[in-house]
Order: sequence, then structure tokens, then C-alpha cells
Amino acid sequence: MISLTTDFGTRDWFVGTMKGVILGIAPRVVLVDLTHDIPPGDVRGGAFALAASCQFLPRGTVHLAVVDPGVGSTRKAIAVRTANYFFVGPDNGVLSLALGRERIKSIHQLANDQFFLPAVSRTFHGRDIFAPVAAHLGRGLPIEELGPAVTDFNRLDWPQSKVRGGVVSGEVVYEDRFGNLITNLDAASLAGFGDQPCEVFLARKRLCPVAPFYGAVKVGRPLAVMGSSGFLEISVNGASAADELGVRVGDRVCVRRWVKSR
Amino acid sequence: MISLTTDFGTRDWFVGTMKGVILGIAPRVVLVDLTHDIPPGDVRGGAFALAASCQFLPRGTVHLAVVDPGVGSTRKAIAVRTANYFFVGPDNGVLSLALGRERIKSIHQLANDQFFLPAVSRTFHGRDIFAPVAAHLGRGLPIEELGPAVTDFNRLDWPQSKVRGGVVSGEVVYEDRFGNLITNLDAASLAGFGDQPCEVFLARKRLCPVAPFYGAVKVGRPLAVMGSSGFLEISVNGASAADELGVRVGDRVCVRRWVKSR
Amino acid sequence: MISLTTDFGTRDWFVGTMKGVILGIAPRVVLVDLTHDIPPGDVRGGAFALAASCQFLPRGTVHLAVVDPGVGSTRKAIAVRTANYFFVGPDNGVLSLALGRERIKSIHQLANDQFFLPAVSRTFHGRDIFAPVAAHLGRGLPIEELGPAVTDFNRLDWPQSKVRGGVVSGEVVYEDRFGNLITNLDAASLAGFGDQPCEVFLARKRLCPVAPFYGAVKVGRPLAVMGSSGFLEISVNGASAADELGVRVGDRVCVRRWVKSR
Repeated sequence: MISLTTDFGTRDWFVGTMKGVILGIAPRVVLVDLTHDIPPGDVRGGAFALAASCQFLPRGTVHLAVVDPGVGSTRKAIAVRTANYFFVGPDNGVLSLALGRERIKSIHQLANDQFFLPAVSRTFHGRDIFAPVAAHLGRGLPIEELGPAVTDFNRLDWPQSKVRGGVVSGEVVYEDRFGNLITNLDAASLAGFGDQPCEVFLARKRLCPVAPFYGAVKVGRPLAVMGSSGFLEISVNGASAADELGVRVGDRVCVRRWVKSR
Repeated sequence: MISLTTDFGTRDWFVGTMKGVILGIAPRVVLVDLTHDIPPGDVRGGAFALAASCQFLPRGTVHLAVVDPGVGSTRKAIAVRTANYFFVGPDNGVLSLALGRERIKSIHQLANDQFFLPAVSRTFHGRDIFAPVAAHLGRGLPIEELGPAVTDFNRLDWPQSKVRGGVVSGEVVYEDRFGNLITNLDAASLAGFGDQPCEVFLARKRLCPVAPFYGAVKVGRPLAVMGSSGFLEISVNGASAADELGVRVGDRVCVRRWVKSR
Repeated sequence: MISLTTDFGTRDWFVGTMKGVILGIAPRVVLVDLTHDIPPGDVRGGAFALAASCQFLPRGTVHLAVVDPGVGSTRKAIAVRTANYFFVGPDNGVLSLALGRERIKSIHQLANDQFFLPAVSRTFHGRDIFAPVAAHLGRGLPIEELGPAVTDFNRLDWPQSKVRGGVVSGEVVYEDRFGNLITNLDAASLAGFGDQPCEVFLARKRLCPVAPFYGAVKVGRPLAVMGSSGFLEISVNGASAADELGVRVGDRVCVRRWVKSR
């Protein structure tokens, strides 16, 4: 199985030609689109999408991620074997959040052009390099054949959550299709609160309570809920939190224990 | 085969993770996307899309439909066996229009959590409950294993067409990508007109003739045509009826016999 | 394998029902979406997308292209066998750019309705005629069975590039998802420049240099690059050329040798 995560969109034929190339090499592979609608060149968005989804695919899947604003420049291209998966893409950080959760076995630079298309364009390595390489891995090619082992990969500068004085602070890292605002606060960073009721603040303004599910607040009211990707999400029951609250990716938020009189 | 109808969009990784979960359980199933672009929470839109398309898939298909604004609340989840298909989704009416055209064999509440993912989130039952259940049905699991039989399912309040004094009245129920306005008037409700020429009225205003195909009127002119989903559609030849005519979902229309002098 | 290129979008169930029909007839065929987001009725856009991508699919693929504003009128429907592929669609030019690069073996009008769905609607031949015909070809039906051989197909009026006085002139023919502006100038038409540095002009205004890859100019600066579909593309490094430069499909451009003092 090969998963695909790109910023190529579905308006043009780009993804279709990648699939054609893959199936020409590995006709029996099953393709799963994670998403092709990463905003153009948004390496962080692509990295987050891949990290939020890759573990739901079967072991042995080849995860192909191409958000590649530096195509044609000197950025490296890599393939990585982990305990559970293979990952293929440009070494610009788009794989790094997913790799950060995996046990790395080996990293190889894509150098052996016998596994590329015969003619490699300057602008579409997704089709000409990454797709055929993923297809060969999907057919069982040993990863060592792709090129020399390297010792590390580029990591994105990802915002870390902080705990100080009983306040956990972080930021909004992703806005989904429903307008839910996903933060970088995971269950571990909120564990200190135990079962105490909590609230989310935006700067110094009280934004919403932390609640167990959407229906815990009235329709139209905001809440924060531990979302399906394992991070706290700011939502509005039945509406778009991004639209209703005017909060955006990059905005800083914090969680405090709920205090009655304030 | 498993078909998917959701409001999850294709911008995020939601559908991809559902597919990963399905293929992890049933690696040889073929997945067909009906649509993932139902407007968020639009149960009626999802119900109409499923009813308009499900009969074009092969017998035995498992139809998975997740438009689920009440996720995490007390709404039930069900699986239904009909003479031709299986249907899986929340019991909020999203399956009801399709089921209304099928002969029901049995209805089961999804209660047996050994067929769910080990950890069920509060916000994404599409991935954690509905996808694995559909995959197990696709592999041949007897539907009785999923949970207790129930006697009925929730039906949407769907607008019915009316015939009075030679006038057939109904309403616009769906706007498609081309701006065609699909009404709830099917061939049976218009049968009384026989082969007589007819016209569509919006309130008391004459809107367009009923015609056999788009080219029967000049480019830029409106017409109503019996559409491919079996309902009368209001269209503009070569343009968007929604844009050109300003008609919207919910607007009431009626069909009358064409009278020359008016 | 069957590829699909349509203007049906992914918002409704149209493509899903086509796939259901195909898989009902040819359950083991692999489907590849090239794109479904051709603007409604844009036969030229569909023709360009198909021509830019079809050669990346394996030999023997059935390419199904349905951009069909004349559905229900008298336009013919055809299937074409070439040295490498099959093509199926309306005979309105949507296949013509792809066919112009292929060696034609035979052309057949779709006339034998035993290979259509039993009930053919007036508005959705994609589902009722083209999908089942493609599926039968995908299963190995001899193309002759589909209907009588015809001697030619309709060709689009496609803009040709011109060379005069050392200036190569052409026009913008496609805008992609990234805002890259694809011209009709291919490598052959620019061969006369050899390795000399060149510039692109819009009317009499200097627009940008021709460069080998995006990174050859600073971020935010325009360039023209030989694109992955084999045509010169006008781009802005890290941004949308369509947005930044205000250039549109149909605008005339020309390429001249770079002259220092001007």
C-alpha cells in the first residue's frame, strides 16, 4: 500500500500522473490519498497532516509526501525505513513530524537514478522521482538500493507547549475543513490538570471551557475538546470556530484550571 | 466493495484515515468515493446524494455514509441489510432516503465494540466506529454480530410533492456542481401530464418550459429536464441556473400544463 | 486500467456513480482519476489535461474523458484505439489533443446500445454510455463491437506557435493550481535559441527571463521554465504568477533572445 500526501490539488492532472507512474511500476499496489489539498508550499501543513494520519494505515505502507517548494534546488530527497513504515519525500521537514513518532531504522538519499523516470523534469519530482521510488519500495525493493545511507533528516521547528505556574500554553497549529482549530497541546501536556474542569484563554481573554464532546455545550457555543488526532481542538458546536472566534493558525492559547469567581 | 459518502471534505486527512482503517481490516475491498463534499453537517444533502447514487453500485456493496453533526451525543449508530446492499452510518436520517427505496431485511445497532478501533475518539466515529464496522461487513461478517436488532430507523422529514387542480407542486431539494436545481418532482408525480407540453412556475412567475434535453432551448435560456437522478431539474443551457435564476434549495416550484395565451 | 477526466467535480455523486457502473461490469479494473475539476463545459481545458497526462499511464489503459456540454444533442460519441491506448468520449474535441500525439489504429462510433446502461438518461451519458463502454473495453471487448468504424474525429482549433524574425510567439493555454501559466510553446519551438539566454514578453513589455528552475530567481520574482508537461510555463518563485502578474489564459506572449542594453 502507498499513501499520498501532496499540495498538488485535484484541479489539475498532477496526482493522476503520479498514480499512473506508480501503477505502471507496481500494478498491484493499493493507493490511498491522505490529502492533496495542503496549501501550496505549506511544508508544516503537510507535515502535520502526515503525522496525524500515517499511523492509521497498515504496517508496511509506503508514505509518500510531496510538499516541495524547493523542487529543482539543492534540497535532498530521502527515503526512510522505520519500525512500521516507509517514508519518501523531499528532506525539507515534511516527513519530520511523522518520523518524530517512529523508530527510525535507516535513512537513504535518493541518488540511484535507475529508479527514477528516464527523463526528470525540473519542476515535478513528485511524478519523476518520488512516485517511481515509492512504487519500487512498494514492490519490495530493498531501501539500500536507492542511494547512500545518511545519518539524519531535516526537522521542522515545531512549537513546543510549556507548563508554568499551573498554566499550559501553546498555539494553534492547524485549521481543519470544519473550522476546528487544532492546537499543539496533547493529552500528556494537560495531564497535570487531572479531572479538574479547565478553560482555554486566548491572550488574556477567556475563550471556552474544555469539554468532553461537542454536545456538552449549546449549539453555537465554543468549547475545546481532545480531538481525534490527539491534540486539543477549539471548536464551536455546529459551526466553524475559525469563522466565529476569529482565531487563526499561530495564535497563542493557554489552558488554566477553571475558577468560579472571575 | 465499500462506498463512502461523507462531509469530511478532501482538504484534511480524515477520509484517508478511514480508508487506511478499512484496508487494514479488509485489504482486498475496493473503495468507491461517492462524495466527501457534503456541506458540513448537512444530513439532508448527504441523504440525497446517497439515495441518488447507491443503486448504481454492484449488489452487495456496503454503503458507508457519515454526516454526523451529533457525533459524541446519544444518537445511535446502525447497520442495515437490504435486499441488495448494506448501509452503515449514524441513525440521524442520513441513510433514510436510500433505505426508503430498498427492501429492508434487518437493522442492527452498532454495539459490539470488538468491531471498533481499540480507542474510540469523541469526535471521529467515521474513523473509529463506522469504517471498521463497514470493513468487517465487507469481509463477510454476519450483520447480527454487530449488535442487537432494532425495529426501525430515523427518517428525514422530506418534502412531498402535491397534485391539486392539475398543478403539481414541490420544491428545490439540491443544487449540483453545475448549478442545476434538482426538485423533488419525479416522473410518477408528473405522469398525469402525459405528453402535453408543460411549464415550471416559481411562485406565480413563469420560469421555464419542461424540455427533453438541454439543447432544446437556446444557450443561456432556462429549461426543466428530467434529470439523471430521476427528478425534474431546473437548468440553464450552458450556464448555472442557480446563478442565472436566483433560485435556491427550499424554493417552492410548480408545474402546469403549457397554455398558449397567457 | 481506466483513467477518468471529467468536469463533473467531486462535490456531487456523479463520478462515484460512473465508478460504480464501471466496477459492476469490470470488477478487477483499476481506476485512476486524472481530474474531475475541469471547469464546467471547458472542452479545451479537458483536452489539455488529458494530453498532458495520458502518456504517464501504462500501455493499454482506457482513457475516459467526459467534458460534454452537448450531451443529449446530436454530437457523436466515439472510442479510439491507438498504438498505446484506448480513448472514449464525446466527439467534441476533448480527445483531440491527446489523439494528435498518438498513432491512430481505428475510430468507432458508439452505436451498439447493448454496451450502454439499460436506461440512458438525457443528461448523464458519462454514467449511462461512456462508463459502461470503457468498462467493456477494459474487460477486453474488441473495439469493433461498439459500433461502425468512422474515418475521423473532431479536432479543436488549437493555437499554434509562430517564429518570425527570431521571435517565437504563442499564448497562455492553461492556468494550473499553483497559478503557473502554461503556454503553447514547446521545446521544439524554442530550439532555435540554443543555449542563448532568453526573455518572455507580454505584448511589448518585458515579463521575465527563461530560467532552468524556480530557484534560479529570487523568491517573489517571475521566471519562465520548461514545465513538466513539456511546455514553457510562466511562474513566480514561491507565489502564483496568475495573481502576481495578472496574466490570463488567452494572453499572447513571445520569447526573444536576451539583450543586455535595452
